[in-house]
Amino acid sequence: MIAFDYFSPTEYVFGPDAENRAGELTASKLGKRVLIVYGKGSAERSGLLGRVRRSLTESGIEFEELGGVEPNPTDRLVYRGIDLCRQKKISGLLAVGGGSAIDTAKAIAGGVPYAGDFWDFWAGKAVMTEALPVGVILTIAAAGSEGSGNSVITKTEGEIKISLRTTILRPKFALLNPALTETLPPFQTACGITDMMAHIMERYFSNTPDCEVTDRMCEGLLTAIIAEAPKVMSEPENYQARANIMWAGTLAHNGICGTGRQEEWTCHAIEHEISALYGVAHGAGLAIVFPAWMEYVSQFNSAKIIQFGKRIFNVDSAPEAIAHLRGFYRSIGMPLNFHELGVDSPDICLMNEKLHRAKGAVIGNYVPLDNVATAKIYELMSLS
Amino acid sequence: MIAFDYFSPTEYVFGPDAENRAGELTASKLGKRVLIVYGKGSAERSGLLGRVRRSLTESGIEFEELGGVEPNPTDRLVYRGIDLCRQKKISGLLAVGGGSAIDTAKAIAGGVPYAGDFWDFWAGKAVMTEALPVGVILTIAAAGSEGSGNSVITKTEGEIKISLRTTILRPKFALLNPALTETLPPFQTACGITDMMAHIMERYFSNTPDCEVTDRMCEGLLTAIIAEAPKVMSEPENYQARANIMWAGTLAHNGICGTGRQEEWTCHAIEHEISALYGVAHGAGLAIVFPAWMEYVSQFNSAKIIQFGKRIFNVDSAPEAIAHLRGFYRSIGMPLNFHELGVDSPDICLMNEKLHRAKGAVIGNYVPLDNVATAKIYELMSLS
Repeated sequence: MIAFDYFSPTEYVFGPDAENRAGELTASKLGKRVLIVYGKGSAERSGLLGRVRRSLTESGIEFEELGGVEPNPTDRLVYRGIDLCRQKKISGLLAVGGGSAIDTAKAIAGGVPYAGDFWDFWAGKAVMTEALPVGVILTIAAAGSEGSGNSVITKTEGEIKISLRTTILRPKFALLNPALTETLPPFQTACGITDMMAHIMERYFSNTPDCEVTDRMCEGLLTAIIAEAPKVMSEPENYQARANIMWAGTLAHNGICGTGRQEEWTCHAIEHEISALYGVAHGAGLAIVFPAWMEYVSQFNSAKIIQFGKRIFNVDSAPEAIAHLRGFYRSIGMPLNFHELGVDSPDICLMNEKLHRAKGAVIGNYVPLDNVATAKIYELMSLS
Repeated sequence: MIAFDYFSPTEYVFGPDAENRAGELTASKLGKRVLIVYGKGSAERSGLLGRVRRSLTESGIEFEELGGVEPNPTDRLVYRGIDLCRQKKISGLLAVGGGSAIDTAKAIAGGVPYAGDFWDFWAGKAVMTEALPVGVILTIAAAGSEGSGNSVITKTEGEIKISLRTTILRPKFALLNPALTETLPPFQTACGITDMMAHIMERYFSNTPDCEVTDRMCEGLLTAIIAEAPKVMSEPENYQARANIMWAGTLAHNGICGTGRQEEWTCHAIEHEISALYGVAHGAGLAIVFPAWMEYVSQFNSAKIIQFGKRIFNVDSAPEAIAHLRGFYRSIGMPLNFHELGVDSPDICLMNEKLHRAKGAVIGNYVPLDNVATAKIYELMSLS
């Protein structure tokens, strides 16, 4: 274990009707005048936004609204949100939705008190020292942004997708009602499962020795997700399975699985180039990236992949472990290669070039990868 | 899973020399004038208190000191601390030690702003709504009080030992340096291991269905503790094993293992009567209570005990699971019965009578127990 500082001051309210506590939590943690940030209309159609507005009004909270957040959210809406917040003297942000709405709200929250371009923080040109408070009402178990300090935004110009992580952007509260996820289309449910598993695996595949506690925690969460996933796929309205998946998604990414370990995040970086260029769902992209990465790196460092296989799938070799992971992805309807992802002629050169331009000549810790290595990983995704 | 509200705003600073950040964290979270609460002198002798004082002074923090906290801490020092804080206009409490020092600091913190008797909160006569902020420098991996809202205090008059739990008393920060635990005597190390395992098991043995995520997390932590325990026992200065045990002890009791489940706590209640009456180490008491409780309740409800046996020890029956747990306790030098605990003529009637006076006619959820049942459990502790 290596030294760490872990601070997760998000209040989680979990259970049926959690969203009805929006007013109460907003009043105590976000202030009197909030901006509601949401997506493309499903929260309106389902009646969720109506309940949230009512809860806010009952608690004497004034609010403005910013809808229309798209998957792989871009800087455009962030700029609009920052302007709106300044104009309307907003005290806090309330995201209603999944990772895209939450990440947009976080980016706005960090941009409002900053005199420069908010993108400076994502580009590494400035360090965020203050932000408006953010609250979350979660509708998709996937990104884990409800409990993380991460915000992934794509800069439209140049299609640059970057994840920022800072404790300042951890939400003040997250209202988690598993029932809200019961109406998700199966593909989105499966993408969410793949995403949360990746958040655990990006922490699990680490060379840091002597991490038995977090290894076992990661393995426990992965085992639970793999057990609950078939239930949510076959019975979308199984509240208890949804509840397990939702809480696993939060724990996967609120940092607890990464305490004391060097983290990896290479697969996310490789995937970000795919979804930035082709607009595919991030989770589906990860389903083709992770096994390909494992296949490549296990040639050089198979120890943790063998442990993963043993403890998760009860198999003895790296190839079997990878085959079982692919089999699981297949069982929940995930793609296994570029073609199944809907990308028939992937521009590997462009993605690989952008990847290393963003992340440097060599990326990754478990096995450091240069541009020849990452090109091979992109190529493996055409094969399987 | 049942509905829950989980809020753990403790900042954990983990690693070698974590205590040197005492000044920085105190300045930002406890205010300018703190009371240091500590035990019977080992923190002084080891030089730890000297480093803490230096760190506080360098950050411009003024401090008073209250030493002499004993194991199974009593109300007496709490009253002295409350007086001292009021007299010296203390802004926050800094506990240096293990559960006893931390719990004493918490009780003082809750008592200072309250006009009545602090014991009212423990006796259930009043609800705590404010408290001075508390910070922790941990020297024993055991009680988990560094990340919990719990404080266990014994009222001297009547030897009444009660645990209070409230989010208000969660520490603002906890400085966790595993190296500080390397000099603990083996018996104390083993008591700590037994205590943290009990904190997980009190949450694990639950009838709440569909808790796969937290079940797996509990099992993962227990498995890790059982793997690391022999290392800290045979190599007390194995920093990495100490680190795993220390972090496991915090996660065992900061509430994350109990999310979405009804918790149990019967064994703690049964043990509190033993340590209140005979002054034995709480962890050692738990080593004789837990297997006896499992033996008794498994006659009526064996499901979770069988799952525990399967997933932790790879055995198939409740008796085998219990035998393996006893074998583990024995391997780290824990007692298995009253005699080995140093109590040759346990006054079972008195303990049992006090237990039900404190907790009501029927206690427990996994199997509700009346006074005949709990008497049998106390009797089982004489046998094994």
